[in-house]
Amino acid sequence: MNSIVRAAVLGNRGLWFPALNAVKTMSTSGGPTPPFTTLSVTQPANHITHVELHRPEKRNAMNKAYWREMVECFNQIAEDSECRVVVFSGAGKLFTAGIDLMDIAGDLLQPQGDDTARVAWYIRGIISKYQNTFSVIEKCPKPVVVAVHGACVGAGVDLITACDIRLCTQDAWFQVKEVDIGLAADVGTLQRLPKVIGSRSLVNELALTARKMHSDEAKSCGLVSRVFPDKESMITGALEIAGEIASRSPVAVQGTKINLLYSRDHSVTEGLDYMVTWNMSMLQTQDLMKSAQAALEKKSPKDVTFSKL
Amino acid sequence: MNSIVRAAVLGNRGLWFPALNAVKTMSTSGGPTPPFTTLSVTQPANHITHVELHRPEKRNAMNKAYWREMVECFNQIAEDSECRVVVFSGAGKLFTAGIDLMDIAGDLLQPQGDDTARVAWYIRGIISKYQNTFSVIEKCPKPVVVAVHGACVGAGVDLITACDIRLCTQDAWFQVKEVDIGLAADVGTLQRLPKVIGSRSLVNELALTARKMHSDEAKSCGLVSRVFPDKESMITGALEIAGEIASRSPVAVQGTKINLLYSRDHSVTEGLDYMVTWNMSMLQTQDLMKSAQAALEKKSPKDVTFSKL
Amino acid sequence: MNSIVRAAVLGNRGLWFPALNAVKTMSTSGGPTPPFTTLSVTQPANHITHVELHRPEKRNAMNKAYWREMVECFNQIAEDSECRVVVFSGAGKLFTAGIDLMDIAGDLLQPQGDDTARVAWYIRGIISKYQNTFSVIEKCPKPVVVAVHGACVGAGVDLITACDIRLCTQDAWFQVKEVDIGLAADVGTLQRLPKVIGSRSLVNELALTARKMHSDEAKSCGLVSRVFPDKESMITGALEIAGEIASRSPVAVQGTKINLLYSRDHSVTEGLDYMVTWNMSMLQTQDLMKSAQAALEKKSPKDVTFSKL
Amino acid sequence: MNSIVRAAVLGNRGLWFPALNAVKTMSTSGGPTPPFTTLSVTQPANHITHVELHRPEKRNAMNKAYWREMVECFNQIAEDSECRVVVFSGAGKLFTAGIDLMDIAGDLLQPQGDDTARVAWYIRGIISKYQNTFSVIEKCPKPVVVAVHGACVGAGVDLITACDIRLCTQDAWFQVKEVDIGLAADVGTLQRLPKVIGSRSLVNELALTARKMHSDEAKSCGLVSRVFPDKESMITGALEIAGEIASRSPVAVQGTKINLLYSRDHSVTEGLDYMVTWNMSMLQTQDLMKSAQAALEKKSPKDVTFSKL
Amino acid sequence: MNSIVRAAVLGNRGLWFPALNAVKTMSTSGGPTPPFTTLSVTQPANHITHVELHRPEKRNAMNKAYWREMVECFNQIAEDSECRVVVFSGAGKLFTAGIDLMDIAGDLLQPQGDDTARVAWYIRGIISKYQNTFSVIEKCPKPVVVAVHGACVGAGVDLITACDIRLCTQDAWFQVKEVDIGLAADVGTLQRLPKVIGSRSLVNELALTARKMHSDEAKSCGLVSRVFPDKESMITGALEIAGEIASRSPVAVQGTKINLLYSRDHSVTEGLDYMVTWNMSMLQTQDLMKSAQAALEKKSPKDVTFSKL
Amino acid sequence: MNSIVRAAVLGNRGLWFPALNAVKTMSTSGGPTPPFTTLSVTQPANHITHVELHRPEKRNAMNKAYWREMVECFNQIAEDSECRVVVFSGAGKLFTAGIDLMDIAGDLLQPQGDDTARVAWYIRGIISKYQNTFSVIEKCPKPVVVAVHGACVGAGVDLITACDIRLCTQDAWFQVKEVDIGLAADVGTLQRLPKVIGSRSLVNELALTARKMHSDEAKSCGLVSRVFPDKESMITGALEIAGEIASRSPVAVQGTKINLLYSRDHSVTEGLDYMVTWNMSMLQTQDLMKSAQAALEKKSPKDVTFSKL
Repeated sequence: MNSIVRAAVLGNRGLWFPALNAVKTMSTSGGPTPPFTTLSVTQPANHITHVELHRPEKRNAMNKAYWREMVECFNQIAEDSECRVVVFSGAGKLFTAGIDLMDIAGDLLQPQGDDTARVAWYIRGIISKYQNTFSVIEKCPKPVVVAVHGACVGAGVDLITACDIRLCTQDAWFQVKEVDIGLAADVGTLQRLPKVIGSRSLVNELALTARKMHSDEAKSCGLVSRVFPDKESMITGALEIAGEIASRSPVAVQGTKINLLYSRDHSVTEGLDYMVTWNMSMLQTQDLMKSAQAALEKKSPKDVTFSKL
Repeated sequence: MNSIVRAAVLGNRGLWFPALNAVKTMSTSGGPTPPFTTLSVTQPANHITHVELHRPEKRNAMNKAYWREMVECFNQIAEDSECRVVVFSGAGKLFTAGIDLMDIAGDLLQPQGDDTARVAWYIRGIISKYQNTFSVIEKCPKPVVVAVHGACVGAGVDLITACDIRLCTQDAWFQVKEVDIGLAADVGTLQRLPKVIGSRSLVNELALTARKMHSDEAKSCGLVSRVFPDKESMITGALEIAGEIASRSPVAVQGTKINLLYSRDHSVTEGLDYMVTWNMSMLQTQDLMKSAQAALEKKSPKDVTFSKL
Repeated sequence: MNSIVRAAVLGNRGLWFPALNAVKTMSTSGGPTPPFTTLSVTQPANHITHVELHRPEKRNAMNKAYWREMVECFNQIAEDSECRVVVFSGAGKLFTAGIDLMDIAGDLLQPQGDDTARVAWYIRGIISKYQNTFSVIEKCPKPVVVAVHGACVGAGVDLITACDIRLCTQDAWFQVKEVDIGLAADVGTLQRLPKVIGSRSLVNELALTARKMHSDEAKSCGLVSRVFPDKESMITGALEIAGEIASRSPVAVQGTKINLLYSRDHSVTEGLDYMVTWNMSMLQTQDLMKSAQAALEKKSPKDVTFSKL
Repeated sequence: MNSIVRAAVLGNRGLWFPALNAVKTMSTSGGPTPPFTTLSVTQPANHITHVELHRPEKRNAMNKAYWREMVECFNQIAEDSECRVVVFSGAGKLFTAGIDLMDIAGDLLQPQGDDTARVAWYIRGIISKYQNTFSVIEKCPKPVVVAVHGACVGAGVDLITACDIRLCTQDAWFQVKEVDIGLAADVGTLQRLPKVIGSRSLVNELALTARKMHSDEAKSCGLVSRVFPDKESMITGALEIAGEIASRSPVAVQGTKINLLYSRDHSVTEGLDYMVTWNMSMLQTQDLMKSAQAALEKKSPKDVTFSKL
Repeated sequence: MNSIVRAAVLGNRGLWFPALNAVKTMSTSGGPTPPFTTLSVTQPANHITHVELHRPEKRNAMNKAYWREMVECFNQIAEDSECRVVVFSGAGKLFTAGIDLMDIAGDLLQPQGDDTARVAWYIRGIISKYQNTFSVIEKCPKPVVVAVHGACVGAGVDLITACDIRLCTQDAWFQVKEVDIGLAADVGTLQRLPKVIGSRSLVNELALTARKMHSDEAKSCGLVSRVFPDKESMITGALEIAGEIASRSPVAVQGTKINLLYSRDHSVTEGLDYMVTWNMSMLQTQDLMKSAQAALEKKSPKDVTFSKL
Repeated sequence: MNSIVRAAVLGNRGLWFPALNAVKTMSTSGGPTPPFTTLSVTQPANHITHVELHRPEKRNAMNKAYWREMVECFNQIAEDSECRVVVFSGAGKLFTAGIDLMDIAGDLLQPQGDDTARVAWYIRGIISKYQNTFSVIEKCPKPVVVAVHGACVGAGVDLITACDIRLCTQDAWFQVKEVDIGLAADVGTLQRLPKVIGSRSLVNELALTARKMHSDEAKSCGLVSRVFPDKESMITGALEIAGEIASRSPVAVQGTKINLLYSRDHSVTEGLDYMVTWNMSMLQTQDLMKSAQAALEKKSPKDVTFSKL
């Protein structure tokens, strides 16, 4: 069934991979990539997919379509053997204003059900779906580099903490907004943010007071690993990092992502056991020999051609 | 049974909530709040409880009474629906010198029991009780902002790592002292400190060498999220943060604390599952509608009145 | 059986503990300590063992002998009641270039086995052995201070993340190299690095792009807790820290290491329960009374003599 | 997208819920319910869905279509608020011969991929999909009563251990067959069987020797909770049990299934914590009052009408 | 504070331990032991405490007083160094009819709170308190032998699954009743029953259909370890088992209970680690030497006198 | 170093595998196999190793040599690619009387150390070593069938619960003896017995009262999966089961053991994830094709020749 949408998109492959040499200008131009209405998907370079949150006129607020399209998009990316790494950013003046309260109001503010238990059941379904929207980023074995400019509010923080590498511009700011609208953040921030930065006091302060955090603090606390002067240089930087990743063995890269995520949620002993079980097969790759030989010949991994994964 | 002490305290409500508009001066004046002998409990502002460790003449060292009173105090706070956030600080010249060795010597240095096993059993009881003294801070669903000035030694570090937000003055210093008196820290530091700051090398160094850490390093490693020039400005700052928290929906705030703590000790998947189960009921609060409406009307959460929780 | 090698080494005790007052010069002079061929083991001061990775002509690359000798060495240290703390460093111009690809090529690049499953079985054995090489550092209850100068590449990062306290020189750099040779790092880095530093974005970037990280970034992210201008001052600093540790009660120190590691892999509640069970016996040590008395008399722990552990 | 298949099926609702009063004869007559080719889905009574594995001419062997259809079928059941309980059985002479080796041979015996790692990646995808086929039974909150007659071999055991209540006929036998075809059972038996019966020695014997277990042993070891003389009486009995379940509050029943599964995989403390969080909303159901009142009036739950869930 | 009630009870020690030689008749005669109103507490033999659920005129239904008194009672038993084992039974014609719906109706059917979230918060408090009522049985380190006659319904099953050894009479029956009153059992049955008996299919059937299980099935599934012809012989049997336990070293017995419970909720590796840490102190008991010597001299443990624990 | 003992044993291969066609008589004749003094090791049939506890004159009591030899023996078996399954039994009139109190008395009753903490440290080392003695049975990937006749006391129960399949004779009885000598069983029984049989009430009764359990109860509770009339028929039966296992693909068999043990200690979800990762390589075995073809040709696995593992 997935194949229907899939065919639609792959039929649009001209649009999906429009102009390999037009990276910079492309990334913020154009509109959503059909059949998506909230996402623009392009291929700025070999093995790199660029996904842009694309509702600039709505400050990239997340509406009902968005929650559904993210899942479809990342499921496709997970299965697209051409893609080895993803860059994620926001179109327009800011990264995202978070959830689109107006669009989503019916779901959350007037939930359906005959009694409290049945309303609860309905809510459980809705939140699970929203949680899944960001969890697909982790389930996709290709690393995701997220590049934030301007505001990153509410569900935006949920989103970026599910990505692998975080970059931002000097003018970026972050806000765990949920407590301001009367709820405990329930689609990932409270679960992932504490595992993403080192200061628990800061995590608590951000989540309990909803105060803004600017780029310098985001860098010093480790939320982002690099700050760029503006969006253009950030996108260039993100693509460079993505290029480094895309040039490595996909067996090595995707195994690294999967095991890093496994380690986050397990003891060191369990992580080591899983790792050795993983590499029982993965070390039998030709990529190892190819890469080792290149290393011995002082060549770059970029000079090696790896099979699709 | 709790109700006996409870009645005693609530009868003292005049003392407990003495003068809402006399915040700054009050916080370090006065003595312990009866029936407590080591804690002063006041209400500097609406929904904010200020607990002060109050044995300044003994450098706020923790004696037998303290271990018991902390539990009573935080159990009462947990059930006090007027209170939404706690500020914790130390009276006098420093935060705390840690355990009161002289007072407690009998318990730990000359434990009771007919043989080694029975002494061990006795020790188990004592340490469990001490551990519980700090765990009540986490069991209390109201966020606790701790403000440290001067020395914070030994059991003081156990205490602050169980709080939610940590602040300190420029002259503050921290010392994991236990190894100096021949024991592995057993009331929380070894368990919580590594989950509170990001550098494991630093945690190990502090715990194994008992060296002092000053405020600047405490800030850069993330132990505290803010440093203030002096105690007065710190208390003001703590009350401001507390005010921010107190003005938000208590449903949102307390759900946030509970889920942040749950996340610390679980995988992301488990944390998300607990979160969605939590919000099956909590999203049905009127606070959500009130807050959302205020947000749409560009009002501050402070302009909204929430029911007691 | 262990006793055979053990006797051999202890017979060399003159060499093992050569010249207590010749610390500085010794640490980088001399060759491996027989029967070791890749490790130099000395005793620069009371209760301190200094282990040096000693293949300077091969940039301290880890060959087959190394993997075996590390286990023997740390098992001996674990049982050596004279030793209370370990300093680990590299001889020559850099810390380590990582795995010795040429020496190890047969094992990993041409593994044995009749079919894929049997090759996998063989690989499982090899990697498990390598993992164990670094895990012995954690299993050894004596704290290990590692001092890095120059390059620390690939398996070098696996090694240092298994140590307790990390120091480096200004010229040091670190590189998670594995992705460059076509594999996911499988002997500890992916499991331990995220629990050692606070920024997950940085961990991911390092592991996925294999970029170098220099000493200043290593300090600010918390990988190392101190940076020294050069190797000599670093070794002096490492021995000072080791001296602080060696002078404390070994009951306190080793209990602290064991419980810190336990905490890393368990919830706070579980860590507290284990801790109290641990101290059921360990608080019955004479060291507690000795240390407490010294503390009350304002003496340093260094003035107290503790029994062997 | 799901909605397309869904509409197709719901359009067939006449076939899906054909003749409420024709239970017994129907259950083994007829063919698969379109669009399914391997499953027959009927509604023998109010709130009860009967799913039959329906490839009798192939001894109900599981082919490629089956793996896909099971997921679709149970996803629909999960969302069908009319259905409160499922009965699962096999059409024809036996329950199932397990996997259809011929049909599936291409997938498992000649997997795709350029090298061992890429073949491994492909295999991972296939097995994950197969695992999911049975896990949907657990993810579906409606209890599943499985009724086994004749042979239940290989993947059949994986299937029934994912169900909630197991019944069988006197002539039924069970065989963990995988070791006979050279693999460790990988779609659930090794994970679930030990948590389903009490004797670990028996589990190991069955899994390691592939010997058959007959109905009497299946009953005494607890794999099934009841044995019936023949298929007809078993289906009647299964429907009676299903009827008991269907007549209770769906809030109570589905909450019970979800929490029983949660308990299986968690400590008692964690299970209790989840349970109380669950019932924060679910105890606010009207069903509680309705049921309590019926109980006080000595009425049966069957006399109470509950809203849809 | 506990000491107040404690003093009251200990002052009643004549009543608490009334007539050491009047075991059999006493156990079902007399009324509740003040200050308890629902429990009778006696000491039928040395080191054995007999707790009887004592509201026979109300079929031992659990009212509000009961939930509170159980906690007080078992906390006292935990601290009573004279007591080494507990026998628990029900006064009158049956063990217990479960929760006292009439008495408790206000709490659960008309919970307090301004909105759904606040009602949920209130419910959380109530259920947690009820859960704790049975968890104190596990927290008490003395083994609890429960003896069931006649009906054991609803919360009765929650209660007995928290005990250590289960006995019953031939006329006993068990019923997981909760689903009949519209809720998922939330005070322990769903968490503990699956860990107490081996057949998961049976657990599910009992919990989902609320059918009665009689003593023979209770024995064959392992819920009880012995069945007695009538209550008198059961109480005698329970006291014999209790006598066996009471005659052993309390260090050995209580360490066994604590570690058996720890094992239930942890992996084997974790259980072994905890066990060895436990016995670091406990093996240093004199009881070991005393018992070993008695064993070598072919004496019974009953001939050895052990110190209080 | 292991190689020294290894060479000694392999040099004795004539003794180790003395007479392939003399199974029955051999198993209880002869003495220990040098260099072992407590174990007899033979090869009764292809791929089957028979280990006999061989101190019949001491009722197979476990002395110091035994604890060491078990580890060496099972480490060798783990690496012996000829061996695919192990049968374990006791020589002489009974299986084992448990620990040899006289031989071991010095270790446990008069432990070494300057103070309680150092004695505890010493005890920790001893118990860990003893625990490891039985854990090697689980670490060895070849299934172990244990055959018990006569008495199986104390450490004997620890031993058999670490085996995979348990058989016994009609005259066999089992006793968890530790509580009788004043300690909580610390080498495996309390951790493994509850995961090996289904009735927790029975586990508790056995461990707390040290009562004997006879073969019929051992069978009905699931401790053993089969009971034989006498030792001779049991050994024959054990060898038949072993023969069934030995004839299957070692890739399938050892993968099954490893994953069954993994499942015991993990949630179903985690077990499934590990399983799929395991089979990424193991499904690429030629054994799969060989076995599948044999199955399609209706041949027995015994007709297939598998490569060594």
